[in-house]
Amino acid sequence: MSEERKPTVEELLEKAKKPSKLALAYHPFYEGKVQVMPKCAIRGFYDFAIWYTPGVAAPCRKIKEDPDLSFQYTNRWNYVAVVSDGTRVLGLGDIGPEAAMPVMEGKALLFKYLGGVDAFPICLKTKDPDEIVRACELLEPSFGGINLEDIAKPKCFYVLEKAREKLQIPVWHDDQQGTATVILAGLINAFKVVGKNPKESLITLVGAGSANVRTAYVLIRWGIPPGNIIMVDSKGILHASREDIEKMKEENPWKYDLAVKTNAEGRTGDISEAFKGVDAVIGASKPGPGTIKKEWIKTMSDNAIVFACANPIPEIWPWEAKEAGARIVATGRSDFENQINNSLGFPGIFRGVLDVRAKTITDEMCIAAAEELAKVAEEKGLSETYIIPRMDEWELYPREAVACALKSIQDGVARIKLSRQELWERALTIIKNARESAQLLMREGLIKQPPPEEEVLKSMGP
Amino acid sequence: MSEERKPTVEELLEKAKKPSKLALAYHPFYEGKVQVMPKCAIRGFYDFAIWYTPGVAAPCRKIKEDPDLSFQYTNRWNYVAVVSDGTRVLGLGDIGPEAAMPVMEGKALLFKYLGGVDAFPICLKTKDPDEIVRACELLEPSFGGINLEDIAKPKCFYVLEKAREKLQIPVWHDDQQGTATVILAGLINAFKVVGKNPKESLITLVGAGSANVRTAYVLIRWGIPPGNIIMVDSKGILHASREDIEKMKEENPWKYDLAVKTNAEGRTGDISEAFKGVDAVIGASKPGPGTIKKEWIKTMSDNAIVFACANPIPEIWPWEAKEAGARIVATGRSDFENQINNSLGFPGIFRGVLDVRAKTITDEMCIAAAEELAKVAEEKGLSETYIIPRMDEWELYPREAVACALKSIQDGVARIKLSRQELWERALTIIKNARESAQLLMREGLIKQPPPEEEVLKSMGP
Repeated sequence: MSEERKPTVEELLEKAKKPSKLALAYHPFYEGKVQVMPKCAIRGFYDFAIWYTPGVAAPCRKIKEDPDLSFQYTNRWNYVAVVSDGTRVLGLGDIGPEAAMPVMEGKALLFKYLGGVDAFPICLKTKDPDEIVRACELLEPSFGGINLEDIAKPKCFYVLEKAREKLQIPVWHDDQQGTATVILAGLINAFKVVGKNPKESLITLVGAGSANVRTAYVLIRWGIPPGNIIMVDSKGILHASREDIEKMKEENPWKYDLAVKTNAEGRTGDISEAFKGVDAVIGASKPGPGTIKKEWIKTMSDNAIVFACANPIPEIWPWEAKEAGARIVATGRSDFENQINNSLGFPGIFRGVLDVRAKTITDEMCIAAAEELAKVAEEKGLSETYIIPRMDEWELYPREAVACALKSIQDGVARIKLSRQELWERALTIIKNARESAQLLMREGLIKQPPPEEEVLKSMGP
Repeated sequence: MSEERKPTVEELLEKAKKPSKLALAYHPFYEGKVQVMPKCAIRGFYDFAIWYTPGVAAPCRKIKEDPDLSFQYTNRWNYVAVVSDGTRVLGLGDIGPEAAMPVMEGKALLFKYLGGVDAFPICLKTKDPDEIVRACELLEPSFGGINLEDIAKPKCFYVLEKAREKLQIPVWHDDQQGTATVILAGLINAFKVVGKNPKESLITLVGAGSANVRTAYVLIRWGIPPGNIIMVDSKGILHASREDIEKMKEENPWKYDLAVKTNAEGRTGDISEAFKGVDAVIGASKPGPGTIKKEWIKTMSDNAIVFACANPIPEIWPWEAKEAGARIVATGRSDFENQINNSLGFPGIFRGVLDVRAKTITDEMCIAAAEELAKVAEEKGLSETYIIPRMDEWELYPREAVACALKSIQDGVARIKLSRQELWERALTIIKNARESAQLLMREGLIKQPPPEEEVLKSMGP
């Protein structure tokens, strides 16, 4: 970001419009973002006697004897269901399962291209949390894992908890665990750059939705004393004696639990109070600008860290945060430095858990992934403008995969054990195959080039 | 089949073992038969801003306004769920959802390679018919169609009927409608070859399971007088005064309905009685040899037609049927003439219904597909040994697709209308793309060649 010439809000909003316009033109052009493709050889029609009747009966019989062999004789080990009920899609709210499809299909695309994971979009025609859990149970025999996405809070906490209890494959809510993992990675490095010990610092979380609730739990598990965390929702600072605390206990026990556990000093008041003297602020709340104000940042301690993760517009513009004294600023946007982006997490994490056929993803596995992600950046040289790798530094995915898989073996939740070297080679091979396959299909015209951007943008008007 | 040297049962069983052995070795070699693949261009990481956040919000908003746009902005229009509860898989019985996966994945492979359809295997962890129906409803927003597979009778009739009532996308039970369609196609041509009018002939169906129950209904809809059909189950000929008729009414109202409707002459007795003087026998019962006996065929009328469709061994060997006087014999096996094979139906039929975003598949659409399938063979020249096309005559798929799509437009169940020419070109393009993509990935080594067959067979022993 040049210091001389700051983009205006209008320019940035305009810039954000370009992908929207292209999305409107390109989505119907391709009529979908992922497809199903053979992954076994078809040398001739006689091969169907191997892949289908009569030959297929033989692997069926084997799996009947030992259902876990479905991870070996079919692609189940690499299938992930991207499950949503469409009740909280991006910032669009409850738009329904059909309208959630483009997001889930996009997620499947990222899963494959970044992590070599065969993810499939499943948008459910129900909003009932128990029925969502039941649907996950019903789907279990076909999948190696489930990625929950864009489910409204607080039911998303319930769905995740119940589904994790009932299923013997990993169930992951990316808006919770994925975001928490990437935030932790960024935070580890941010504290390194400013030279503070995070475990002796005060950290404020602005927004108490799915992302920050899980972030709080992951930070605590990582070693941040719960009392050092201050959480803020739309009504102000969470504390044990807030007047809505009983209602909270009823409706959102996860948030209630944090209200009781965090904020050892018993700070009260509105959001501005939550900034005073704290070392880091993590915003995962409503889009800005103006959700976080410059004057609040001025009250933070020296060498302040500010993560403003709301999309598409961060809670505060990075240059404003810096002018107010923040030393490190991160956002969710790819056009600013330090992008806190879920896509840095889930593809590598799932690559790892799928390769060992893990039964669940523990918080320790999230932490292992976050620490590895932080390390990838650290090895390249940290700075105020580089606390986390970018999506195109693609070795981060197999590295996360290995870290996560090794932790799952250690935690006793892996169905099979592979060595570090085996894990690395497997992850690398799978991810390379995914990218090369897609690139080959593009190069040979079997995936067409889209119409030129300029033409599209021109034809669509302002 | 050479007249001089008939293979023995042992030789044929041995021959059937080869694909089984290769299947056992090749399934774990590939670790799955289908994968998920991008179908849109990824020119660089910036394209993810179009396919995922922030750009993706724009198509989401459009679909929210009109949920049917999910057929245009996502690949929903081409997704088919291959749904099973694993209760009646091939001839293996109730082997459970995990063990059903290789079959459903194989089906997905055929769907793609033959019909360009993006089918995904969904094996459900429930045996409850209402829950299977409910699962189909829950999945509806993500799919353009549902292919039910290998669900035990009689619940498969109930599941199909209920799901068709409740969903606005086609629900198809391939074991019923698919088999019925291909049998009808074969029968149309068989009657042509022998020069009889099928609508004035007697037709016996041996076996009253999902295939033949639906075949009876489709034959009736096509114009065979119900009274000219004689159905046989394990207890003998179905007729209105059979002693178990009340129990049948209770447990299997579809079979009951046919018991009342068919068999105008009120024939009674065991299976041997059902052959006397009839023009065609269609076996879809238990594997032979010996399920149908030579001496029964001898009692059929002249120019007898015998379809022995049980897999892997037909109810009677073709040469035995011929020795007993049958003029035309068809089986389910690819190594005999006249293969009655579901794979001749579903890929083309679904190609057609998906291309017009049909809301259901009517029996008339099955009949249109069957007639077109029959015509493909007729145009090449019918004979006693060629009453139905082979799988590798691949123009049959787009032709079926067009016939089926046009009928669905005519029947008022299509969401969009395309001309015959548009349908033909679309089906052709999609199917060609599917095959060329798979072949390209094989050619370039991104789908590996399997280990040599001889080595595998040698290492596996007898």
